Amino acid sequence: MNPLKFETTRPLDIIAIGRLCIDLNANEINRPMEETNTFTKYVGGSPANIAIGSARLGQKTGFIGKVADDQMGRFITGYLEKNSIDTKGITVDRTGAVTGLAFTEIKSPSECSILMYRDNVADLKLHPKEVDEEYIKQSKVLLVSGTALAKSPSREAVFLALEYAVKHKVTVIFDLDYRPYTWVDEAETAVYYNLAAEKCDVIIGTREEFDMMEKLLNIEESDDRHTASRWFSYRAELVVIKHGGSGSIAYTKDGMSHRSGIFPTNVLKTFGAGDSYASAFIYGLMKGKEVSEAMKMGSASASIVISRHSCSDAMPTEEELLNHMETAYYELAQHG
Amino acid sequence: MNPLKFETTRPLDIIAIGRLCIDLNANEINRPMEETNTFTKYVGGSPANIAIGSARLGQKTGFIGKVADDQMGRFITGYLEKNSIDTKGITVDRTGAVTGLAFTEIKSPSECSILMYRDNVADLKLHPKEVDEEYIKQSKVLLVSGTALAKSPSREAVFLALEYAVKHKVTVIFDLDYRPYTWVDEAETAVYYNLAAEKCDVIIGTREEFDMMEKLLNIEESDDRHTASRWFSYRAELVVIKHGGSGSIAYTKDGMSHRSGIFPTNVLKTFGAGDSYASAFIYGLMKGKEVSEAMKMGSASASIVISRHSCSDAMPTEEELLNHMETAYYELAQHG
Amino acid sequence: MNPLKFETTRPLDIIAIGRLCIDLNANEINRPMEETNTFTKYVGGSPANIAIGSARLGQKTGFIGKVADDQMGRFITGYLEKNSIDTKGITVDRTGAVTGLAFTEIKSPSECSILMYRDNVADLKLHPKEVDEEYIKQSKVLLVSGTALAKSPSREAVFLALEYAVKHKVTVIFDLDYRPYTWVDEAETAVYYNLAAEKCDVIIGTREEFDMMEKLLNIEESDDRHTASRWFSYRAELVVIKHGGSGSIAYTKDGMSHRSGIFPTNVLKTFGAGDSYASAFIYGLMKGKEVSEAMKMGSASASIVISRHSCSDAMPTEEELLNHMETAYYELAQHG
Amino acid sequence: MNPLKFETTRPLDIIAIGRLCIDLNANEINRPMEETNTFTKYVGGSPANIAIGSARLGQKTGFIGKVADDQMGRFITGYLEKNSIDTKGITVDRTGAVTGLAFTEIKSPSECSILMYRDNVADLKLHPKEVDEEYIKQSKVLLVSGTALAKSPSREAVFLALEYAVKHKVTVIFDLDYRPYTWVDEAETAVYYNLAAEKCDVIIGTREEFDMMEKLLNIEESDDRHTASRWFSYRAELVVIKHGGSGSIAYTKDGMSHRSGIFPTNVLKTFGAGDSYASAFIYGLMKGKEVSEAMKMGSASASIVISRHSCSDAMPTEEELLNHMETAYYELAQHG
Repeated sequence: MNPLKFETTRPLDIIAIGRLCIDLNANEINRPMEETNTFTKYVGGSPANIAIGSARLGQKTGFIGKVADDQMGRFITGYLEKNSIDTKGITVDRTGAVTGLAFTEIKSPSECSILMYRDNVADLKLHPKEVDEEYIKQSKVLLVSGTALAKSPSREAVFLALEYAVKHKVTVIFDLDYRPYTWVDEAETAVYYNLAAEKCDVIIGTREEFDMMEKLLNIEESDDRHTASRWFSYRAELVVIKHGGSGSIAYTKDGMSHRSGIFPTNVLKTFGAGDSYASAFIYGLMKGKEVSEAMKMGSASASIVISRHSCSDAMPTEEELLNHMETAYYELAQHG
Repeated sequence: MNPLKFETTRPLDIIAIGRLCIDLNANEINRPMEETNTFTKYVGGSPANIAIGSARLGQKTGFIGKVADDQMGRFITGYLEKNSIDTKGITVDRTGAVTGLAFTEIKSPSECSILMYRDNVADLKLHPKEVDEEYIKQSKVLLVSGTALAKSPSREAVFLALEYAVKHKVTVIFDLDYRPYTWVDEAETAVYYNLAAEKCDVIIGTREEFDMMEKLLNIEESDDRHTASRWFSYRAELVVIKHGGSGSIAYTKDGMSHRSGIFPTNVLKTFGAGDSYASAFIYGLMKGKEVSEAMKMGSASASIVISRHSCSDAMPTEEELLNHMETAYYELAQHG
Repeated sequence: MNPLKFETTRPLDIIAIGRLCIDLNANEINRPMEETNTFTKYVGGSPANIAIGSARLGQKTGFIGKVADDQMGRFITGYLEKNSIDTKGITVDRTGAVTGLAFTEIKSPSECSILMYRDNVADLKLHPKEVDEEYIKQSKVLLVSGTALAKSPSREAVFLALEYAVKHKVTVIFDLDYRPYTWVDEAETAVYYNLAAEKCDVIIGTREEFDMMEKLLNIEESDDRHTASRWFSYRAELVVIKHGGSGSIAYTKDGMSHRSGIFPTNVLKTFGAGDSYASAFIYGLMKGKEVSEAMKMGSASASIVISRHSCSDAMPTEEELLNHMETAYYELAQHG
Repeated sequence: MNPLKFETTRPLDIIAIGRLCIDLNANEINRPMEETNTFTKYVGGSPANIAIGSARLGQKTGFIGKVADDQMGRFITGYLEKNSIDTKGITVDRTGAVTGLAFTEIKSPSECSILMYRDNVADLKLHPKEVDEEYIKQSKVLLVSGTALAKSPSREAVFLALEYAVKHKVTVIFDLDYRPYTWVDEAETAVYYNLAAEKCDVIIGTREEFDMMEKLLNIEESDDRHTASRWFSYRAELVVIKHGGSGSIAYTKDGMSHRSGIFPTNVLKTFGAGDSYASAFIYGLMKGKEVSEAMKMGSASASIVISRHSCSDAMPTEEELLNHMETAYYELAQHG
């Protein structure tokens, strides 16, 4: 059992809000992008990936977002629908915005980089008026990704969604997902991350992300337990702090902490690890698993996705995930 | 006695944060601006006026803001200093921003309008890095004016100041002061007004301002008591709702309400009524007066200012205010 | 006689195109603006001043420009009409642009400075579609001021007006009037000044303005005769180069040069000298005077305006100008 | 023989200025882009294609432009160098601009469309200071593409390059290449196209492009001969007007006109037809061919490129071109 209570009578398990974009993954890997010739197109963006991962695991999933009025936008909506995701909350931009792009470069399994196109993107044009109170209250969970806070009016749309979620007891899960491009500076970022985190039941982020949020408030030293307590004084029940290779640690309001391990695998690229982790971790929590078991599910999902070419299309089904957990070796990570 | 407790050992009584600008008041009145020829220059901007009003009443007053690097900016800082306001928290813009202007037109005592210059203004360039935690914690009160939330980075600077104020038990007074220019739309405005109001101990605004904040949340009917309760569920202790000619009503967390009256006077113009009211009302609260007595002080100050040509320069001293309260006729306003 | 031929049958003598703004002149002079309290409002902007000067001298004058939809905009249009200027070519902005402002500071007769408000100004929103071919072809002269080239769409509106003027044999007079604010950099400025000058019959500017135009083309040394010749190879018939205190020199295509002198006077401020010079110089040229006589008229007008408080409102009538020329002392300037 | 004289002693045959971007051509053709999965990356942009075409034909070719500081930018510069194009005139943006993208969709040979990414692109950041007079004067020809006029500072860089070219007798060839995205409106476009065309020796465009330029000037009817004459009154010696399927017609200043035909082929897509035509047509002119023979060369090159997958990489060598002209069937087009 975990500390979270979900509103079990709601028709949707999870609604994700935020970025919908396109990944263009180089087909030729282990070389710089200057030397690649062809790319394969996938749906991308952290909340899109988490939504796809959730749907693959059998969760009833919806999305609130905005797509460009072009072939890329239609591809995205079509792909989500093929994955049984409810797209009623997705609106189409009419101002000439484009679809965000992420060209991925895989120089080696550990040297991956992304070339982003984020100017004038449709996903950041989501307007508060396009966020429907009735829709949000049909879900057990609202999944918020920090990137959607990067610019107006998407920023205000997310704050309004948070307001509705709190009002209607929708469990809010905040995946910090901080990406410096599109943000003006760290002070701006930290202000909005802090304001949003106050409204959330579960907060998931890297140590560096929490440090960025605390630096603004003149909190100098990194202390996981202290970080978690700060959020327990607002609404949080569960705070997950990721330490890269050394694994993650989850704190609950009752003072307990839980560590996750990893399923070693042949890494093709590191992209998608966080999103696949999040979708399976949330799935575990919603199935009523212990926090540590949910974390193990997250790790299993991540180990599957990082051995494959895409982020979204690689997400495992419930059956694949459970199989992998039974057959693969699980190693508890060392931590500080 | 009123419900507010102030940190009595702090060296400053009140720090205002936000807009510092110039009023250019037509010398020829009772005619349209097309027919006026000369203007007199005054310091203006709601929080500037409240700070000047406070200083005149003998309060130890500071300011956090930003001025243009030009003659107008230097005039503002110089005027504040002449009024014994601490300007340590005021920085000078170096990006070529200008000083906001407000040309006032007085067609008749009841038909006043303002022509604003708010493009590229210095006051909205205040950056979070220019807000000093140590400075804020030296004050009993932080006075926030809603206009400073209109644009980045001033918006983030205000949220950071709120964070510091809450952390250090500085009483936060929020004068909504909503002015549509510079805001993109009502949804954006309402999102940030609501987020800021959650952090405040005292909220002062017109019925229309509270309506704008509630409309976003699909709250359809205007109900003063319901509005006040909503904020009592966050941090507020006192909520003042103004109803124009029908006077104001103040609610306290204990369920009590208090009405203010007016001191009839020869009205020259209506500008400055709200700011003079606020400065004397806060003065009363900080002197430990009952809410209704503090409201009476606010009304007295307003009646003095609206009979004079400027907003800032017209603010009464403590002696003038007390004299006026003794000698002038006070009429309790009717309220629906 | 001078080298210019005008289309004598046209109903209008001169149409000016470009900036219409407001001057706010400090009433208290000989002190920094930090210490001034009141301002008097006048119509301003170089082409507006030249148009007003022309109309005062009895020229049939029109204007092509754009004003803000506010009291300042209506004041400008009203003032031009009172001065018998045809305002048919003036459109009203509907996008919320403001009227440009120039606050003048007169520290001493020789130390004058201007504080400009040029963000989002209506005059630079003039669009090519608002320039009417039929209107331009009703005039003998088109007066272009360089400031109107500073930003789109006003820049394109001016180029289109030039195209129409050339097509219909309207004599084009270009007053360079280079003011760095609103321009991005000198290279951008020089590109458009050079393109515009190619279409002009008369070019009037300071040595520094011509230097800025030539620097882009890697022309290193300042040589008045060489500067003039360059423009004679395009369409110019007359080039006037101003050397500040050392007077002006005018070149004509036939290889002749002409120097102007000054009428010594009690200088109140230097603003408006160039605009008053231009209006009377053009008036002289259009009356068929010799170039040197027209220059003398320009100097007489300038000496009247710089002894008065405003630029526009101070422009002399034909009678005043001729009186001044008869009664005042004229001193031929020395020039290196 | 044709009417153009080239400065034969210059080390470079042709310098192109303007857009350098990336084409991402769908590998799966004859379907909408919503259904394509993979893309192949090529260098693109009209002047880039013409430069590559010229180099393949053995012309000594240079380029003036700007690329992003990323993998796409380095790919472009590297590809040009591999094709023996001098990249000395190409600078690298340091402001975070991106590389322009063109995703191509081939629904059928006659239904091709492009999805453009043109926000914040490096090619339009080319600044006048990056245009070197010495470099331009080393070339016989300067090839200007209209797209480079779409935005500042690239617009001013092109006007400066034109100034240098005229000064040093470099033959200027203007390929109108009008693409509405990135332009604000048709009036703005027409103003700058007209100003640029005044400086050019050869102008190549579609009937629709010339119509757009003339509409601004209230020229209502399309008349090829009249269009050509207008430009002969400036500097043009040769004007080519394209009529799509009905072929092209070239006018020379002596009053002659010349029609081109087509080499029928299996069309894969229509992209690249204009650029391949231009590179071979210019090659023919520079080899001293008759206008009609040069047009035939253009048609031959176009017929090769439209039967292949890319625009740039498909450009024929001199040998391929001459072979094709000998072996393929040439059909003189019908024209109106």
